[in-house]
Amino acid sequence: MDSRLVSRRIVRFKQGEIIDVEDILIKEMALTIYLNDKELVTLLCTPEYMEELALGFLVSEGLIRNYGDITKLSLDSEQGQAWVETSKLEIIAEKLFLKRYITTGCGKGTSFYNVIDSALIKPNASQLKLNPEHIVLLMKNFQSLSQIYKETGGVHSSALGTSSEILIFREDIGRHNAVDKIVGDCFKKQVNLDDKILITSGRISSEILLKVAKMGISILISRSAPTDYAIKLAEETGVTVIGFVRGERFNIYSHKERVLGISQ
Amino acid sequence: MDSRLVSRRIVRFKQGEIIDVEDILIKEMALTIYLNDKELVTLLCTPEYMEELALGFLVSEGLIRNYGDITKLSLDSEQGQAWVETSKLEIIAEKLFLKRYITTGCGKGTSFYNVIDSALIKPNASQLKLNPEHIVLLMKNFQSLSQIYKETGGVHSSALGTSSEILIFREDIGRHNAVDKIVGDCFKKQVNLDDKILITSGRISSEILLKVAKMGISILISRSAPTDYAIKLAEETGVTVIGFVRGERFNIYSHKERVLGISQ
Repeated sequence: MDSRLVSRRIVRFKQGEIIDVEDILIKEMALTIYLNDKELVTLLCTPEYMEELALGFLVSEGLIRNYGDITKLSLDSEQGQAWVETSKLEIIAEKLFLKRYITTGCGKGTSFYNVIDSALIKPNASQLKLNPEHIVLLMKNFQSLSQIYKETGGVHSSALGTSSEILIFREDIGRHNAVDKIVGDCFKKQVNLDDKILITSGRISSEILLKVAKMGISILISRSAPTDYAIKLAEETGVTVIGFVRGERFNIYSHKERVLGISQ
Repeated sequence: MDSRLVSRRIVRFKQGEIIDVEDILIKEMALTIYLNDKELVTLLCTPEYMEELALGFLVSEGLIRNYGDITKLSLDSEQGQAWVETSKLEIIAEKLFLKRYITTGCGKGTSFYNVIDSALIKPNASQLKLNPEHIVLLMKNFQSLSQIYKETGGVHSSALGTSSEILIFREDIGRHNAVDKIVGDCFKKQVNLDDKILITSGRISSEILLKVAKMGISILISRSAPTDYAIKLAEETGVTVIGFVRGERFNIYSHKERVLGISQ
C-alpha cells in the first residue's frame, strides 16, 4: 500500500446496517527539525518529502536563505528527524522565530509579526498574466491529481504551476506543510518563481498569503475562500488572489490586472 | 451586517462573463493573550467570543485549571487584546508551553510533546452511550447551524452537545480556535462534560484529539476523517471517534462500545 496510508478495521454504519470493514487512514507523523544541532521545532505531517518540508519550513521562516550555505542535510524518516546545518544562520530571523513562538509579537499586541513580515516584503511586480481559461483548467488538473484526498478525505494539497501545467504537486495533513514542501523543493532545485503560480485546496488565511508573498509568487489560486486580512496583505504585497475556483467560475479578490480580459 | 463578515467589491468570472460584484469575506483578526501581564501568544481568529477563546486556549494548554483562580479577565475587542490574571499560575505548564513553542519536544526528537500529554490524561471511563440515530441527527443539526460557512465557505465549526441536542455552537477560521471557544465557555460556566459530545467540521488530527481528551469528553464526532495517530491516541485515552458522518452513514474508529447496537 501507499506508504502515506495505513489500513485499519473499523465499524461502518450504513443505512441501518452495521458492518465490520477494512478502512484506509492517512498517516500522521512527527518530524523534528534540528538546525545547527539545536532542536528547533516538531511538525505533525504526512510522512513523505520530509527533507523538502524541513527545508521549506526553514526558508519560509527566514532562517536560511541560500542553498549554497547548507553544509549538511540529512533525514531519518523512521524516527522523523531532519538535521540541517548552515554556514550562515540568519540570527535575526532565528531570534524573530523564537520570539514569534514565545510571544508572537514585538512587545505590543497589535503590531504583531504579520505586520513586520509584510513590511519586509517587496511588492511583487511580476508581469505574469493568465487567461480565465487557464485558471479553470489549472484547477481541474489540480483536482484530478489529489489521490489521497479521494481515498481518505483527510489531506490538503498544494501545487506549483505555470499558466498551462502543474509542475509540482504535494499533499499533507497540514495546509502549511503542503506549501512548505513546495517551497523546499523549489529552494533545492533553485526554481525561478517569477512566472509561477501557487494552487492550494485550503482556505487563504493571512499566514498562507504571507508564505506565498515571501516566495515571490505573484498569483495564488484556491478552491476555497480568503479572509479579509489575507486580501489586505495581498493588496500590499502585490499578490493576485483568485478564490472559489469551481467549475467554470471563480472570484478575483486582489490585483486583478494579472487576469487577461479584466478591464483595469 | 454580521460583525464577523465584511463586504468587498470583487470581480467574478462566471461562464465566460466578467462581472463586478459585492462579495462577503470572513474577518480574520489577531488576538494577543496576556497572562499575568506577560504577552503569551497571538492567535489569528474570527472576532467573536474572544474572551472564551483566550480562556479556552489557556485551559487547553494547561496554564490555568480552576475558574476560581482567575482574578482578572478583560478584553479589548477593538485592539484584539485579552488580559487574564490568575492567582495560581501553573508554572510547569507554562514552562512546557514555552518549551513546546520553542522546541516542541523534550530533548529527543521522537519523544515529543504528544506523548507527554497523552501519558498525563486519565483514560476516559464515561458510560455515555449513543444510538446510531442520535449520531446522524446530531450531525444534521450541526450542519444546519453553520451560517458563516454557507455564506463564505471559509470557517470551521465545532459544537458541544448531548445525545439529543446541540448546546453550544461556535465558528472560527481556525479548527483549534473553534474548539477552544467551546472549552472556554464550558470552563466559565463550569459545565459538566462527562455526558457531553464534541462535534467538529474538521479533520481529526492528533492535536484535536488530545484537546478533546484533556477536556474529559468521551465522544468526538466529525464530518471528516481522522489520522492514524489520532486514533492511536483515542484508543489510549478512551475516546470514541466517529468520523465521516454523512447522511445516514458513519464510521466508528475507536471505542465502539459507546455506540448502542454494536456487538462488543
